[in-house]
Formats: sequence, C-alpha cells, structure tokens
Amino acid sequence: MSAQTVGDVGEFGLIAALQMRLKTTAAVEVPSGDDAAVLRLGADRLVVSTDMLVQDRHFRLEWSTPEEIGHKAAAQNFADLTAMAARPVALTAAIAMPAETTVEWVLGVVDGLVAEAEMLGAAVVGGDVTRAPAITISVTALGVPVGSRLVRRSGAQPGDVVAVCGRLGWAAAGLAVLGRGFRSPRVVVDAHRRPRPPYEAGALAGAAGATAMIDVSDGLLADLGHVAEASGVQIVLDVERLPIDDQIRETASAFNADPLGWVISGGDDHALAATFPAGATLPAGFVAVGEVVAGSGVEVPGYRHIGAPGFDHFRE
Amino acid sequence: MSAQTVGDVGEFGLIAALQMRLKTTAAVEVPSGDDAAVLRLGADRLVVSTDMLVQDRHFRLEWSTPEEIGHKAAAQNFADLTAMAARPVALTAAIAMPAETTVEWVLGVVDGLVAEAEMLGAAVVGGDVTRAPAITISVTALGVPVGSRLVRRSGAQPGDVVAVCGRLGWAAAGLAVLGRGFRSPRVVVDAHRRPRPPYEAGALAGAAGATAMIDVSDGLLADLGHVAEASGVQIVLDVERLPIDDQIRETASAFNADPLGWVISGGDDHALAATFPAGATLPAGFVAVGEVVAGSGVEVPGYRHIGAPGFDHFRE
Repeated sequence: MSAQTVGDVGEFGLIAALQMRLKTTAAVEVPSGDDAAVLRLGADRLVVSTDMLVQDRHFRLEWSTPEEIGHKAAAQNFADLTAMAARPVALTAAIAMPAETTVEWVLGVVDGLVAEAEMLGAAVVGGDVTRAPAITISVTALGVPVGSRLVRRSGAQPGDVVAVCGRLGWAAAGLAVLGRGFRSPRVVVDAHRRPRPPYEAGALAGAAGATAMIDVSDGLLADLGHVAEASGVQIVLDVERLPIDDQIRETASAFNADPLGWVISGGDDHALAATFPAGATLPAGFVAVGEVVAGSGVEVPGYRHIGAPGFDHFRE
Repeated sequence: MSAQTVGDVGEFGLIAALQMRLKTTAAVEVPSGDDAAVLRLGADRLVVSTDMLVQDRHFRLEWSTPEEIGHKAAAQNFADLTAMAARPVALTAAIAMPAETTVEWVLGVVDGLVAEAEMLGAAVVGGDVTRAPAITISVTALGVPVGSRLVRRSGAQPGDVVAVCGRLGWAAAGLAVLGRGFRSPRVVVDAHRRPRPPYEAGALAGAAGATAMIDVSDGLLADLGHVAEASGVQIVLDVERLPIDDQIRETASAFNADPLGWVISGGDDHALAATFPAGATLPAGFVAVGEVVAGSGVEVPGYRHIGAPGFDHFRE
C-alpha cells in the first residue's frame, strides 16, 4: 500500500488533516480554519491571515506585470481580513525566486504590495528573500477589528439572508480570455490581473449584524460550502438573483461560455459573501442571493453545475 | 545592456534595494531591516518576523525528518523574536509542495512546528497550502515584548562589550558532515537538523541592558557586520575568546576542517550576539568575545578568514 499523497486527498482534505494537529493557547481567540485567525495580545486583538502565490499557478509572468502580482498578493490577504470585519495594519512578504529573476521585477512586486497596503493605510514591514525554482510569494496580513465585533464563518442561522458584495466571475472570465490567447475584453483581463476586493464592505457588514462572512476566493459555491459547514446549516441560492454583470454576460457570449459558471465557481475576485438576520437592512453594495435553512451543503435549485464547485490547488 | 538579476546583486543587495521601496505608517515602530519588525496596535506592541525555507537549500528530505524541518522552520523565526527580547505568541505557516508529497510528510512538518511553538507557549494559528515544484515553507512568527524594552541592531556604542550566547558552528559542522556522506558525529548532525536557539537569553540580555542584539543566522561575521552597519560602529572580535566547543574541535579534526571557520561563518544555530555597556554584568550563558569601537565593519585581528563571511542565498 503506497502512502497517501496531497494530490490524493486534495487541498481541503489536507487542510482538514492539518487542523487536527494544531493546539491552542489562551491567546488564540479564533484558531486556524476561518478567513483569518484572531489572537489576543494584552488589550488588543490581532487578526492574521497567510496566503501563498506560486508562479504559473496563481500568476503568469507573461500575463501580469510585477506590480499587478504585488497588488494581487496583498489584496487576497487583505480580503481575508476584510471578511472578518477587520482592517489591515501591515503585511510581511517572503519571496523565493530563481537567481536569474531581475531586480526590477522583484522591486515591481514590492511596489505593488506597498501600493495596495498604502491604499488601506497599511505598511509592508518586512519579509525574506531566498532562492527557489519557481517564484513563490507568501504574504501574511496583520490587522485589527474595525468595530467591536469580528465576523466568523460559523454564525449563520436558519432564516438568515445570504448576500454578496463585489465582483463575481470577473477574474474567472479574465483567466478564460487569457487562457485562450486573447487580451480583451480588457476589463475582465484586468480583473484577473488585479482584484478589487470590496474593502469597505466587511466592516459595514459587521456593523449591520452579519452572522457569518467569507471572502470568495475559491468560488461562491465552494466558499458558501465552507460557511454552511462551519455553521452547521444549509444554504440555498436563488439562481435568478445571482448578479451577472453585463461584462460577464458579454464575455461569456463572445467565448461561448456559461456566465453563471464563472459567477458561481470563479474565485479570485475576492467578493464577500455574508449572512444577515432576516429583515436586516443590507449594507450598501450587498445583494441578497439566497437564504439559510436547516440542513447541510449548498443547493442551487434549477441549476445544474458542471464541474468542481471551486478550485483545489492539488486537483485541477 | 541586460537587466541586473538577483544573482548579480546577491541577497543583501536585493534586500537593501527592496527596503528603499517601503513606506512607513504611524503604526510602525521598527520597520523592516531588524531581526523583526515592531507594530503598535492600540496599547500593545506586536513583534513580527518572516522566514522562508526551500527544499534542497535550507533542508534536504534525505537528511531531515519532516518533524525536524518543522522544528527548524519555527525555531529560526522564533529566534528572530528572541533577538529583539520578545517572546513568541503564535506562528502562521504557508507550505507549497508537489502533489506527490505524502500527507504523512506534511503532517510531520506541522507536528514539528506545533511542538516547537508549544515548548514556548505559542500556537500555530493557520496558514496556507498550495502546489509548487519544490517544497517551500514560509513561517511568520508573532510575538510580544517580554519586558518594557525591545533590543534592535542599531544601538551598539563604542566601548560596549560584544558577547555571544548559544551554539556557534554546530550546524555548519553538521552540514559539512552530511555533505560528505556521513551521519556522525550525531551531535553536530542533530544540530543541523534541529537548531536549539537560546530562547531564554534574549529577554535576559534585554533586561541586562543590551544595546544591540542579533540572531546569528547567516554567520557570526556577517551578522555582527549587520550590527556594525546599523549602529555605525566597528566591532573587533578577539579570536582567542571565541568559544570553540569540543564537539566542533573534534569534528573539525576528523574532517580536516578549520573549526574557527565554522564558528565564525556558520549560521543556522541561531545563537545570539549582543552588545552590552562596558562593565555590565553579562547574563548567564553570554561570553564576551570582543568590543565595539569607532569605525565600521568587523575586524578579527590575527585571523585570516578564507571565503565569504556568511551565507548569501543567491550567491553560493
């Protein structure tokens, strides 16, 4: 019998196995398993999240400028803080790269990291550089709660409204366009190159009483699946209410693709998905797309999804 | 004219160029460039450091168990906090790996990270897993000051005593042994596989009035060079006072190597080097090895060092 590989169990199987090995301490308020962990440091709470990007998997040197890659690396980490209703204070970045990487390229990545951080009042405070066969960028984002409450994945209750805020399917459409050798429509290609997470919306959702929230990075179905699992509920999406932006509809039409497929399973736009108590006034930018009921998993009545609900880094 | 590569400028040239691009904010008390950065979060201070390990550069699968690699990844980051006179609270880890990596191996690394953290009362609070051609482990260590003062690299003053605490040259001796195909002396091989930083000594040095401190990770000459540069001073080492442990002397004798070379330019043991005001009582474990004078750089009168003063990841 050969040993199980990470390819056999997949990204989420591996994460589940890893989390069983962790131990907690009194300083850990939210352990690994949410968008970000929360630590108590004396009087303050620290919200921390780590994400890694690998060349040819998360970005391609021929498709993105180094500045765009830096923006993306920062944005996907800051979006995790946003999804807790926290705001970023700083990030650290470790970059491994081949020796033939140009200094100019690395400085471009750093400029992108710095610019995305600066836009949010945060700073890049350090990191590491080393050598590796493929460029690998690991970012750790550090933040603090905006208000008094942080929003986890686990608080969704039957009767809650499910709502989304931000772009859905744009980055997936852009990736499809680039993958077929095109460079336009520019707006979706740019969305793939540089995500624009709805940074303000996380704190607004927290203040509006959101019961659960997640950053849509793996795809709406997959990420709402994480909320459903963490909360012990079922989420039912209303396919008619899922926002399909005109850009996505037009791109799908031009490329003979299913626009709803991009919206429902495309990640990398870093939209927010949240649940709110029935009757709550949704914050600006949020659109109701479904409801929480008793049960498990995510259902989309009337829609038959082809393929995986989202992206698995060890299994595509 | 072809563009400069990171191989051309080397690790420290690249870091210097990167640091010029960073911007600070009111929350940044110590920016990038020390062993760890320091952030102000409300009433508390957060000390943060990031280091990345790459397969076949920082560890070899045939030389170390996954648990040892996990211990090492945590230890080298925690040692950076120790060198600021801080203590660890938590770490995050991002691990990129080929799909054929066994789950058991990854769990072993996590067990090593968790065990090293637990030994210090800290927790592993999350991270990321993704796919890459070479196993790459990026750890971010998060800590808080032990006492009221943090110790930087930049405070050494002419007249100060230079002292070291912890193993010097052990990991380098172990690496030399393994590199020649041997597995013993076991004690130095084990030192390479799993460093044992003097975790208690950092806070003691801070309380004893250390004016500057650094984690010896690149080699004593190289790291004292960082202190000399940050402090605007010269450091003069007394070659007669450098501690050469019997293990190192015996291993060097058996392998026809220069024991002082390992002591003076071997990294990866994560000893501490610190400067103290003249006449200060050195904390337990510290040995005086030199003094701080006006000038620049590091001098070792009577010793002619062959080769680089330390390790450069883009230039060996």
